Order: sequence, then C-alpha cells, then structure tokens
Amino acid sequence: MDTARSLDRFFAPEAIAVIGASPERGRIRGLLLPLLRGNGYPGRLYPVNPSYAEIDGLACYPSLAAIGAPVDLALIAIPAEAVLAALEECAASGVKHAVIISSGFAEQGGARRGLQDEIAALSKRTGLRISGPNAEGFYSAKARVAATFSPAVEPRPGEEPLVVGECRIGVVAQSGGMGFALYNRGRAHGLSFSHVVSTGNEADLTAGDFFDYMAHDAETAAILLFIEGVRDPARFIAAAEAAARQGKPVVVAKMGRTKAGERAAASHTASMAGWNAAYDAVFHRYGLLAAADPDEAVAIAAALVTCPLPRGNRVAVVTTSGGAGAWTADALAGAGLSLPELSPALQQAIGSFIPAYGSARNPVDITAQAVQTGGLLRAIELLSETDEVDAIVVVLSLASETRIRVDAAALQRIVARRAKPLQFYSYTLPSPLGRKLLAGAGLTLHTALAPLAGAMRALAERGRFTPPAAARPPQPAAAVAAALRAATDGLSEHAAGVLLARAGVAMPPQRLVRRREALDAAAESLGLPLALKIQSPDIPHKTEIGGVRLGLATPAALRQAYDEVIAAARRLRPQARLDGVLLQPMASPGVEMIVGSIRDPGFGPLVMVGAGGVMTELFKDVCYRLAPVDAGEALAMLRGLRAAPLLDGYRGAAPLDIEALARLVAQVSEFAAAYRDLVQEVELNPVIVHARGEGCTVTDVLLTPAQR
Amino acid sequence: MDTARSLDRFFAPEAIAVIGASPERGRIRGLLLPLLRGNGYPGRLYPVNPSYAEIDGLACYPSLAAIGAPVDLALIAIPAEAVLAALEECAASGVKHAVIISSGFAEQGGARRGLQDEIAALSKRTGLRISGPNAEGFYSAKARVAATFSPAVEPRPGEEPLVVGECRIGVVAQSGGMGFALYNRGRAHGLSFSHVVSTGNEADLTAGDFFDYMAHDAETAAILLFIEGVRDPARFIAAAEAAARQGKPVVVAKMGRTKAGERAAASHTASMAGWNAAYDAVFHRYGLLAAADPDEAVAIAAALVTCPLPRGNRVAVVTTSGGAGAWTADALAGAGLSLPELSPALQQAIGSFIPAYGSARNPVDITAQAVQTGGLLRAIELLSETDEVDAIVVVLSLASETRIRVDAAALQRIVARRAKPLQFYSYTLPSPLGRKLLAGAGLTLHTALAPLAGAMRALAERGRFTPPAAARPPQPAAAVAAALRAATDGLSEHAAGVLLARAGVAMPPQRLVRRREALDAAAESLGLPLALKIQSPDIPHKTEIGGVRLGLATPAALRQAYDEVIAAARRLRPQARLDGVLLQPMASPGVEMIVGSIRDPGFGPLVMVGAGGVMTELFKDVCYRLAPVDAGEALAMLRGLRAAPLLDGYRGAAPLDIEALARLVAQVSEFAAAYRDLVQEVELNPVIVHARGEGCTVTDVLLTPAQR
Repeated sequence: MDTARSLDRFFAPEAIAVIGASPERGRIRGLLLPLLRGNGYPGRLYPVNPSYAEIDGLACYPSLAAIGAPVDLALIAIPAEAVLAALEECAASGVKHAVIISSGFAEQGGARRGLQDEIAALSKRTGLRISGPNAEGFYSAKARVAATFSPAVEPRPGEEPLVVGECRIGVVAQSGGMGFALYNRGRAHGLSFSHVVSTGNEADLTAGDFFDYMAHDAETAAILLFIEGVRDPARFIAAAEAAARQGKPVVVAKMGRTKAGERAAASHTASMAGWNAAYDAVFHRYGLLAAADPDEAVAIAAALVTCPLPRGNRVAVVTTSGGAGAWTADALAGAGLSLPELSPALQQAIGSFIPAYGSARNPVDITAQAVQTGGLLRAIELLSETDEVDAIVVVLSLASETRIRVDAAALQRIVARRAKPLQFYSYTLPSPLGRKLLAGAGLTLHTALAPLAGAMRALAERGRFTPPAAARPPQPAAAVAAALRAATDGLSEHAAGVLLARAGVAMPPQRLVRRREALDAAAESLGLPLALKIQSPDIPHKTEIGGVRLGLATPAALRQAYDEVIAAARRLRPQARLDGVLLQPMASPGVEMIVGSIRDPGFGPLVMVGAGGVMTELFKDVCYRLAPVDAGEALAMLRGLRAAPLLDGYRGAAPLDIEALARLVAQVSEFAAAYRDLVQEVELNPVIVHARGEGCTVTDVLLTPAQR
Repeated sequence: MDTARSLDRFFAPEAIAVIGASPERGRIRGLLLPLLRGNGYPGRLYPVNPSYAEIDGLACYPSLAAIGAPVDLALIAIPAEAVLAALEECAASGVKHAVIISSGFAEQGGARRGLQDEIAALSKRTGLRISGPNAEGFYSAKARVAATFSPAVEPRPGEEPLVVGECRIGVVAQSGGMGFALYNRGRAHGLSFSHVVSTGNEADLTAGDFFDYMAHDAETAAILLFIEGVRDPARFIAAAEAAARQGKPVVVAKMGRTKAGERAAASHTASMAGWNAAYDAVFHRYGLLAAADPDEAVAIAAALVTCPLPRGNRVAVVTTSGGAGAWTADALAGAGLSLPELSPALQQAIGSFIPAYGSARNPVDITAQAVQTGGLLRAIELLSETDEVDAIVVVLSLASETRIRVDAAALQRIVARRAKPLQFYSYTLPSPLGRKLLAGAGLTLHTALAPLAGAMRALAERGRFTPPAAARPPQPAAAVAAALRAATDGLSEHAAGVLLARAGVAMPPQRLVRRREALDAAAESLGLPLALKIQSPDIPHKTEIGGVRLGLATPAALRQAYDEVIAAARRLRPQARLDGVLLQPMASPGVEMIVGSIRDPGFGPLVMVGAGGVMTELFKDVCYRLAPVDAGEALAMLRGLRAAPLLDGYRGAAPLDIEALARLVAQVSEFAAAYRDLVQEVELNPVIVHARGEGCTVTDVLLTPAQR
C-alpha cells in the first residue's frame, strides 16, 4: 500500500528531467524528449546534458542541480558507468523517482552486477525509488507521460484510433519489447490503457510493486502481466490478493514454460525463472488468467473489459457460415467449453426466421441470408434470454469495406444490457468498417480462432473464481517443530511417520522393532500379515539391498524375514547405522495415488496429489496447489486429475474413499504450511485408496527437512 | 486421372453461361456477372434469364438453347425446383460442366434430398460434370475465372497487392465461406493461389475429385484442404498418394474434431463426418499436414511455399527483444521443436558482434542495437551455415512506418540460397513497409506465435516424411477367409485364436477341452500353471459368470476349476451352448499393452496399439495407422506412445521385447488388411510384453467378423 500510494507521482510527475537528453533522434537518448512532447506531456521538461545549451527549442541544463526547480522524475539515459553519480545527484536534489533506461548492468554479468547492487543500496539508503536499469520506461495515458523510447507510443497524426469502451488496462512487463507490443496489439483492437510499464532489471522497484500499484489504481480496470521471474514473491502475492479482493481481473503471461524459454527468460534480464508449478498454483489461488501467447493475452484482456462474467461454460455459436461455425465449435470445445445442443423449443423459435438450409442446433447456422433479414440480432437476443447457454460467440465475415448489414444501434442496445458475454469473430480479415461497427457497440472483434477460444475459456474460468478467504495459517506444534529442527541428518521412515501422525496426518499403525525378540509382540498388536522394512538413516533406498519384505503371514515368516533383512544390510552396507525394522499391516487392495508437498524457494509450500505408480511420471497426471488447502479444495484437485475416474469406481468397481484421500491431502498441506520453514518435501507414495468408507493407507513415507 | 484431365476446361472455360443472371447486385445471382467481369474474365459470357434482354450491357438470353454457341461452363443460380430442368438443358446443349450455386437440396433435408439424388443420377446418365449444389463456386487465378459470389474476389482497384514468390496454392473447401476466407487471409500474407474451389453438397464432383485435380495440376505448388467429411475415400486416397509421389505438400483442416464441431460439420452440408482416427491415419500415411485453425493453415502453407524442408527439428531463435524471444522459444518448444543451446564456438562467433548484454545461447538475443550494425544478418548467416540447427526463426519488431534497418538485398541473397527454413515473426503488428521488406526477399511475415510454431512443426514433420512405398496388399488365405465367412454368429476366443494363428499372428499355445477327462492330457502338453476360461458363443463376458480361473498349478486344481466353471455356466446361463473350456499357459509377468484393428467404413482397416490396463481409456495413449504396417512402422508407433518408456526398461527394470511387440502389431495389421472385407475388429487385450528376447503373450482375444 505504501508503494501503491508513493507511485502516484511516478506515473504523473509534474516535472521531468531527462538526464542524457540529446538531439540525435537515431539514438535512444534522443527519442525521449520528442516522445514526451509528441504525446502532449503537460508538465515541465528539463533536458540535462552539459554538451548542449538547448535541444529542440528547450533550454538544456548542464546538471540536475542547475535546474533550480523541483523535479519529480528523472529519466536516465547515460552510459552505465555514469549512472550511480547521476542517482546520487537526484537523491541530493530531492528527486523522488528515477527510471534508468541505460543498459549494461546485471544482464551483462560480471562486474556489472556489482554496479547494480550499488544502485539498489543507494535506493535503500536515500529513499529514491528507482525503476530499471535496462528498462524501456513507461507510458501513462491519463497523465500523458511517455517516459520511454518505445516506438509503440510514437504519435501518429491523422490516425483515427479505434476506441472500444472506457475500461483501461494496465500493463506490467519484465520485457519492454513485449510490454509495449501488448499495448500496440491491444490498441489495434480498440483497447484503452492506463499505464504500460517496463520493469527492466528491477534493482529497486519490481514487477510486484507495479502490479500492486495497478491493483489499487482506480484508473486500471484490468491488469496484464508479462513475467519472466518474480523477485519478491510476498509482494507479488499481496498484489494478487488485492486484485482478487477488488474483483479486478489479471491476465498473466509467464515465460520459461520450457527449457529453451527458461534459458531465454533467465539470461536476458538476469531474473529467476522459478518453478512453473508454483507459479501456476499462485495463479490458480488468486484467479490470475494465464495466456499462452500475445494474441491470447490481448484477446483475454479484451473479453474481460468488454463482457460480464458468465455463470457457466456453455457457449452458443451463431454463424453465417457452416464451415466457419464448425471450426469455431471445434476450437471452443477443444478449449474445454461446452456447446450444448439447443432445446427443441429454442431450435423451433430460431428456426422460424432462418432459411430451411440453416441449422438451429448449436452451432446456430443462420446463413448469410438471415443476416439481411435481421436474423442475426434476433438469434442473439433469444440466446441472451435463454438459460440454456452462458455465453454467445458470433461468427461472421466483416471483410466488406462498404456495407455491413447489421443494425448498429440494435446491437449496441443488446451489448449494453450485459446479459451474458457476447464475442464476435470474423473468419475473413475484417475491414475498418467491420471493426468500427463493433467498437461502436462496445465490443472488440476477434480475428483469430485460438485466441478467441482462449478468451472464452478464461471468461468461464474467471466466472468460477471466488477470491480465497483470508488466510489463517495453521499453527505449528512446538514438539513437532523441535523434532524437525533436530533432524539435521534426515528422518527415517519410522520417525517421519511418527512426526506426521503427531502433526495430525492420518498415518497407519506401525511399530519399530529393534530386537528379534520383540517381533512376536509387535505382530500381536498390529495383526498379520505384515510388511517389514529395514530402518537406517544410511539406507535411503531400502529395496536396493532387499530391505523390504511384504505379505508376511506367520510369526515364523516374520522372524525369517527379519534375519534375512538384517543380514543383508550388514553384508551390503557394513557401515550403516541400523535402527531395526519397521512393521506395518499389509494394506488391503485399492488404487495407488501419490500425495506430497514441496517447498518452492519463492512462493513457499505446495501440496501435490496425483495418479500413482508409473502414471505419475509417464502422464504427469499431478495437481499442485499452494498449501494449505481444505478438504473441499483437495477434492477439486482430485476431480481435476485424468485418473479421477479410477476413484469413482472404474469399470464397475466399487467407488473408492475419495473423501478420505481428500482429507489426507488437506492434512499434508496443513503440515507443509505449519512447518514451512522446516520441511522441504513430503512424499507419501504410494497411498492406497480403499473402497468408500474404508479410508486410504499411506504405505511409504519420505520427509526431507529443509536445509538451513 | 480422368477427372484430373477433364477438369482443365472446368477451371478454364472459354464460354460461361450464367443461368439466373440478374441485375440486382444485392442478391447472390446478381453478383456473378460483375465478379466475373471485374476479375477480367477473357472468355465469352452469356447471361441467361427470360426476364431481361440485357444486363449491364451484355445481351441476356431467354434460355441456354437461345445462345446458339458452345458453352463450357454453366453457372446456375435459380430456385432449387428449377435446377433439374436447367441441367437437362445443359446436357442437351452439350455443356460439359455446371456449378450449382443454388441452395435447398440435401442440406435442407426431407424431400430435397431426393432432388439432389436426381442431380447425381442426371450427371451419371448424361456425363455432365456438376459441382454443388449449395456451392460458393470457384476462382481460378490464371484463367481469371471468378465463378463465385464470394466477396473475397471483389476487385479492389487501387490496392497494391503484396506478392511473395511465384508458388501458387490450390484450395479445396467443403465450405465456401472458409475456402474463400483462407484465400482472403493468404492474400493478406502475400501468397498466390492457383484455384479456390468450394465443393458444396458434392452431388457429383467431390472434394476428392478436386484434390486429385490439384495434385496433378502443374499450376498448383501446394494444396490447402478444408474437409468436413470425405465422400469418396478411395478417390481421396488416390489424390493424396499422387500428391505424395510428386512431393506436393498438402495442408488439411478437418472439422468435427469434437462433438459440437461434428454436429456442425454434419448438419450443414449433410456430409459424413467420419472417424477422426481414420482421417489422422490417412493424413499420416500420405504426409498431409493438419492445421488447427485458419491462421495456422495459412501459416503452414506460407512456410511450405517459401522454405526448403529442414533436415531435423532443431530451431535457432534470433531475437531483438529478450522477452519476445523467450515467448517464441516457449511456443516452439511447446510445439515439439528442439532449441539446442549453441556450441561455445558458435556463441563466441555471434558474441563478437553483439553487445555484452545480449545472449548467443539460443534464443540468440542480438539486441535492438545489433540490428543497426548489421548483426541480424550476420547471425542469420552463421546459423544458416552451422549444422547445429535445422531452421531459423527471427523475432523482431517491424512496426515502423518509416524505416527498417535491415539490408533488403542482403536478406534476399540469404533467402535465395535456401540453405534452411528461415521464418520471421514481428511481435508488434507490422507496418506495410515491414511486410514489403520480407515479401521482397520472398518471405511472408508471421504476426502470431501459435501459427508460427505450428508452421515450424509442420515443416519438420514434412521434412521427416517419406512417401509410402507402393502398396502390396497382403494376400488372404482361402481357408481363413472361408472360416471368417462362416462365422456369421461370431467367434469364440478359441476359434479366434486358431484363426489368427493360422493367418500368421503369433498366438500362444492353447487347448480347447470339451470333456473333463481331457484335462490331464491338455495340462501335460501345455504345462502348469494354466488359465482356464469358459467357451461359449453365448457368453461374451466370461468374468461376469465367474468363467475365468487363473494360476491353476495342479491337476486337481484344474479339475476343480473345470467343475465349478461349467456348473456356474449351467446355473447362470442355462440356455448357453457350451463349447468347453480354453486352457492357456499362464503368461510370465510383464507390461500390459493393447493391440488391435478396426475397420473404418470409409478408409478401411486401421491397426492400433496402446498402453494397456486403465491407461488405454484414462489417458487415450493409443496410436492408429492405416493397415498394413511393417515392423518398422509398428516400432515407430510404439516409440510415439507416452507409455514407451515402460518398454525400454522403466526405473531400472530390464528392457522389454519391443521388437516382438512390433512384429505382433505388424501381423495384426496384415491380418486386418488381408481380410478387410471380412473382419470388423480385432482386440488383443492385454498383450503382456516380457523381457527382451522373451517375446510377448496375447492373453485375451476378441475377433468380430464384419456384418455383411
């Protein structure tokens, strides 16, 4: 909130000094003044450069101090070596904010990292808030501040911009090129923007800070993030939480989804690419909508600022071309949306005003002919009123330069009612006339199918989203915490099981047997058949030495197994400290799953559940969420697995105890959250899920304490 | 080949009659003459309409007969009821080809289907070749024939079209709207077209016919197909084979990938949507490249006509923006391409001419600054020469209206060398200047990431493609065919096993035992332990009645199992005819797979292999190919499964006998092909794959003879 308020003046400075200003328009430093002036910056502008007395008719100052008037923002475009001195001067002169355009800092590596550290230290010491270095600057529409060299803000005199509605989008980008490209592409769709900011190397102000500012900024109705790696996870999460609380939608593009992308994201701004599962878990919790590519990012943002949210994921397609309608239907259904066949009554109602060779099933093929007789808007109206679908996609050709037979005023009235999301797709490349028709009604026009499908999916996802309840972190128990702290050497399976059970995780009964003589009593208390496993902090892979025996059904078999396992351990791992053997009742049959937690260095503990056995790795059928989750959210995780049908009673089998499994997932998540600083990883694998009412059994445990 | 030659005059008629021509330009029939004339049709044009003496200065005829001169093509746009009479007149007057634009036939259903059948019959009877009805007509560029009402061919005087290279694309579309939209979108990219044809309801000429024509047409360098359902599979396959033989690439968009899409595809032109696995198998065999959406279709076609084929799937990304490069890398890697990190030597060579804050790893971030010093072309040249990558993607911003700092002539020289595929992506929306720069070099410009990634993937796929060797259909054995013909009632597992073994499929030993007394001898010959299964043509689901017993290890256990199974069958299915029990040796352990075949009504037998057990259904980890396949192709099918690692020795297990499994798949495929008219389906499930050298065991067989 502090940053949020303090950045008001950053984005709307009353006086700007351009340090390194130059008349050479072929160079970055020479572009700053013309772009500021060309975009109508209304405040005071002070070029600073000892080489010039004036630039383009503006008085130029030899130094910041020479200005002799207050400056809110310093734009710095001088060689990297000179930047630190300029910042000192800023701080001394009472400048509050600086944007360092200059490159050649951490992104260059080597000694230049130190230079950037010095900038960070200066900011901390003086209170001067700094954006960059290696930034492309920012553009703030309302204050008319184009503090950037991006060609995307070059004024285009004579161009009549397309404007769709009033809602403004804020862009925060860890790449100046992409941030302004999203702005450039969004403008072509008629979207309006509040602020576009490129964060550069983030020596001081981070993407999280700007995200937080925009989450609180009344000018910004939706936020578009381009992220390579979040440097301040807590700040980022606070911003995401603020946006969620206010119902402000956020679209996020996260780079580094693949190894090559990660290499690119990591190399060029020296950021931390981080672990994708953790990012996705954060996005899921706070309702951030992920975009796969720039066109999808803009399409999602466009849909969010022009549409109400849908109540479900049922879409009707209204088309003037059967073929284009079929392709749209495939694209939407492929994105997970549902396209229900319309009821006979609704089909009849629509059928009454379209030609017999059309179709009212869904896709609703009204045919090109029905457009001319007003059938398009009638179909849209009927579909707006029905509760059979939650959203409408109109597919048509808006290529004509001269004439489009849609009643613009009537369309505007339908859109203004905001009954449900309504989006248009032109299967031909649209004419300016076509775009204007829709802009007049307050809508953008999609020209590509994949981004349209992504936007409809994102709308449905956002429609389902409820902001997370205020976090109430689970409380650690002192004894468990102490045991974890003491386990610097790792934990045996037995010790891990004891700890988890004490912390409230439903673990099966077990007995650690240190002496052969104690076997019978343990068997008596646990019941036969049993599993027997060697226990040693020095033998992590028990099966490798034949240290696990299953299905021991008699006391004699138990004793023999004990002897063999201990002998094998002594023979094969003579140096190992042996704790004894662990006895557990054999689990009754069921479906194998995996449950666990892992601590992300930035975002903290995640809980995980997935299909067990070979399916975990082969099909990556695993779901991660930020820990903790409650049993309801754990159930939703399970329902989202592709292996979910196994739990519901597959091929005539009895339904399994999915509720018990969900409780176990919630318990593990609470453990991971309560001991977040002490636990690196928990893996319960396999967990055997039994028939409904019979629970599930953890049959193997791995608990890795955090390295401290 | 017949059709291929006979359609020359269809696409280049010397005289056209427009039946139903009208001066009303607001109606379809009124658009035909102006579009033909506006596009400079050089032949003779005869409007036919008894209501007018002349239209737009052209003499109008009351009837076809009144023309009194030869007509090559009749364009028919009159009410459906009058079409048949007009066609009769065409046939009587010696017209060779007709295009029926009129709607209201099979797509309308009901009695109108009959009308269309009559058109088909007329065509057969008279030899008049007919396209449509319900077609949007065609456009043929070289002959300047715009025989369509599509607004996509409206002449745009004053427009300076972008032209990239000389190669022309042919479009065959089962949707006029989409066919001409692909043309419209392709033209905006600077692509050239040979013919664009909309096939309508295909009463006579089908998409297969036009595909075949374009496969043989010297004007057409690449083909773009929009398919809802193929009506003449044999013709379609012949065309695909011809295109493959000539190395002519084909891009195909197949509708009906989802239920909603299928509904749309099926409803609007009354076509058969068919089974997607069969289509995909056909596409795979003949190297047709599938496109997910219109932008990807155009992007793939553009890459195919402007690039050489790559030798592999390794791509280098050269970028002027780190962020845009990261996004591109993610998109390409996500599409299955490989982005190897460049060798130290190559990184050093590139590093010598880019700023220190760039990166030469791959993505190669040359930075915007290096563009100004010629670094872009130097990087492209180095990457063209290296054997570390097979293709190059350049990412930059071509938004500037005024100045782009790339040496056009040098770029042209690089492209002309055709060393490897080179594609450009502008992350900002490009200016006309940017597009022209690339068009001058013979390249299109990608403006969207997903289509670019699809195009690169398609190039790599096409680069791997080798046309199938001339088919040598496996020969059926008379005895097996006779047995299949006799099996009108279905086949028991035993009988199916005997048949498959006789036909050359490697089946395990088995014995059908009809009398209790024969058990011991059978056990003697097969060896214990055994599996025992009830055999009855009336008991398809053996386990339901407890008709399967496994692991019978002693003669006594075998006898007891026999008694119990027979008793259970008599008790629970008193009417069932019992053949006895089937004895098979218990298979040693291994990984479960599924192997089978299924006959598609259109494209014939497909062979299938997949991960067994629950994985088949849950993860759809299954591969289909047209039967037959040889063992090499079967191995490639196995390698493509997500479960493939299981076969290679998973988690330290011994590698399995993947070669034996591949041989089994090939055998099943040959069986399915040899008896294609007699076999509907084969399912071997599970097939247990053992350690290398120990083969695999079919443990259950289902063979469904074809219904005849």
